[in-house]
Amino acid sequence: MAAPWAHRYAQRTKSAKSSIIRELLKLTQRPEVISFAGGLPAPEVFPVARFQEACQRVLQTQAATALQYGPTEGYRPLRELIVAHMVRYGILANVDNVLITSGSQQALDLIAKLLINRGDRILVESPTYLGALQAFDLMGAEYVSVPIDDHGMQTCDMEHALRSGPKFMYILPNFQNPGGVTLSRKRRDQLVALSDKYGIPIIEDDPYGQLRYEGEHISPLVVLDRTNLARDSGYKLGNVIYLSTFSKVLAPGLRVAWIVAPPDVIAKLVQLKQSADLHTSTFTQMVTYEVARDGFMDEHVKLIRATYKERRDAMLSALQDYFPPEVSWTHPQGGLFLWVTMPPGVDSSRLLESALRQDVAFVPGHPFYPNGDEGSHMRLNFSNAKPEMIREGVRRLSIAVAHALEHRTAAVMV
Amino acid sequence: MAAPWAHRYAQRTKSAKSSIIRELLKLTQRPEVISFAGGLPAPEVFPVARFQEACQRVLQTQAATALQYGPTEGYRPLRELIVAHMVRYGILANVDNVLITSGSQQALDLIAKLLINRGDRILVESPTYLGALQAFDLMGAEYVSVPIDDHGMQTCDMEHALRSGPKFMYILPNFQNPGGVTLSRKRRDQLVALSDKYGIPIIEDDPYGQLRYEGEHISPLVVLDRTNLARDSGYKLGNVIYLSTFSKVLAPGLRVAWIVAPPDVIAKLVQLKQSADLHTSTFTQMVTYEVARDGFMDEHVKLIRATYKERRDAMLSALQDYFPPEVSWTHPQGGLFLWVTMPPGVDSSRLLESALRQDVAFVPGHPFYPNGDEGSHMRLNFSNAKPEMIREGVRRLSIAVAHALEHRTAAVMV
Repeated sequence: MAAPWAHRYAQRTKSAKSSIIRELLKLTQRPEVISFAGGLPAPEVFPVARFQEACQRVLQTQAATALQYGPTEGYRPLRELIVAHMVRYGILANVDNVLITSGSQQALDLIAKLLINRGDRILVESPTYLGALQAFDLMGAEYVSVPIDDHGMQTCDMEHALRSGPKFMYILPNFQNPGGVTLSRKRRDQLVALSDKYGIPIIEDDPYGQLRYEGEHISPLVVLDRTNLARDSGYKLGNVIYLSTFSKVLAPGLRVAWIVAPPDVIAKLVQLKQSADLHTSTFTQMVTYEVARDGFMDEHVKLIRATYKERRDAMLSALQDYFPPEVSWTHPQGGLFLWVTMPPGVDSSRLLESALRQDVAFVPGHPFYPNGDEGSHMRLNFSNAKPEMIREGVRRLSIAVAHALEHRTAAVMV
Repeated sequence: MAAPWAHRYAQRTKSAKSSIIRELLKLTQRPEVISFAGGLPAPEVFPVARFQEACQRVLQTQAATALQYGPTEGYRPLRELIVAHMVRYGILANVDNVLITSGSQQALDLIAKLLINRGDRILVESPTYLGALQAFDLMGAEYVSVPIDDHGMQTCDMEHALRSGPKFMYILPNFQNPGGVTLSRKRRDQLVALSDKYGIPIIEDDPYGQLRYEGEHISPLVVLDRTNLARDSGYKLGNVIYLSTFSKVLAPGLRVAWIVAPPDVIAKLVQLKQSADLHTSTFTQMVTYEVARDGFMDEHVKLIRATYKERRDAMLSALQDYFPPEVSWTHPQGGLFLWVTMPPGVDSSRLLESALRQDVAFVPGHPFYPNGDEGSHMRLNFSNAKPEMIREGVRRLSIAVAHALEHRTAAVMV
């Protein structure tokens, strides 16, 4: 039945596509399905006992604050903890550079509201994070896309894209969602130099930076940005807005993330957040603080890394054992995802239907492309299922893939 | 220092005024200030022990769900609890009519995104809730305003306003923020009839409906809306979107509220919420459910009513005792606020400066007027301070008011 108000919907809602991932997650809730579709952390690594202690401590000693309205900027001790945390990654922010958001998705919503006029072009990686495209679409964004390879966005070919005048660049440098690839140091240097040359700011989205399973940490763009050094009165960030989150290192059910930006940009984002949800739950912020404090988060991340590395390795070795040679995949050095590329002519949506019949799920590649489908891809998550389930899931998936390849060959032969 | 990106801000940010209430709350954090400025619940009535039990129960038995990503629509048992709760107020919704939001402020943000194209007129009460104006402003709203009196919005004079083609009406029928007045039953009937006649939907914002201290409950607009009855296949809501929240009956620090709308409108709002923050914290939703369940909320509301009634009465009697006869105020039958009207010529912003020197705070009336200042008003909150503090605060405020009236008289004499 049509909505009695459908004719009253604003123009922007026409672009509000329901996330394919979201609809899929519904299909995959049958317990017999092994799902590589979501981006869910492993529930086995949630630090439940620490959460229990944290809730008790907050409610025993600070309930009147924890259950009350709080400041839009966020709970100050948590912002200070974030500042101290980031220093070890070379990000020399202070508390005025940090705004707490209700998950990184809200950071994308606020940035879209701050910067996008209808018709503005945004420079993104191709493929890129679907949730960012949804938030940007809603404010009327169009896209200039730059392809990725095994070393991240192909910066060598991007001057043309920059000359088209994008409003900003949106980049996931570490273990990219969905590609699983990492932007090399050389390309990061090129990127911040290009940002400075063209005066085009960068949104650096880094939810997985701490989850590296091999290789050396590479400095984030916000650290490499030389425009920071040109300022003398305290630390003022320059061309980069940096986003990160507690979702992947503590728990996503809290919806606590943060934005790092120059103080005057933060002030504007605070106004926008105020009209979006007043502030993020005081209680979850205080619980997050109590859980993360005293070095717990850094210790806990070691457990997550060990767990996810084992799962990544299980997926890589199962792919090697079961998948046909025409299919290739990325080798993520961290994060939650890898990206599978199939030969041309395989329809990844049909492949998904066939996979669901085998009780295994993934996300088809096309919604991650801002300007339409490019080739035939699958995004596979390896953080949620246990190693033996990963192996079994890849085995099931290989049956669907083999069938799709046969079907493709048959079609070509006809 | 100007933002290096200030020239890149989107057009909509020009309307993003920082809330005067928010800036004020900062000034009033000195412990010696008695604040009537915020809309803060009394921390004394937070059910802390029940929250402690709820957190333990959720984390002991359902941690893997509570700390994980969840569905955008919200935690299903909480949505079912809301449905059962609303039935007793005559709202015959089912679970598909309910979307959980991160506070009612997010509901306003989502509705603004759903319905407002730049330049659309919205019909609002004058004065009205500042946070709604902020959310609507951001999507480019303009306003047609209808004045309120002691019986709420003056519906008798509103056909002219309706003929100007507003996209929707935004109404706070119970104990309005900031006016403290309640829309009479007769006017409610007129309003839903006008909504049907002109085909203009109503957003009914009802955060305080349960907090009535005298008089009889009046049915909400969503119940009076006859268009609901025209449909036969299950209960489909018609011209009214209804908003309510746990902020005033349990605790605002959770940021858990809800929207009631026809299922197809909910489906569109779910898409918009997905790009706004994916979903409201699973943990706070489950804790809210555990706190509210088994009839606790209804029992607890009795305590809140008794507490706030005493505070309202303390404020009314102190105003009677201390304030000069030229000043008048509303008599709220419930809610958190009353509205003071001063004689013309009193500058309420200057009065606030003078009040802060007496260590008492309020919110000046002008930001609540969508189309600019009308007269000289103060919004006073009576829920947060204890009765003896309310009396002392009104005494201090009366000194500032007397000074303002003298100053005004002096100015007139010159």
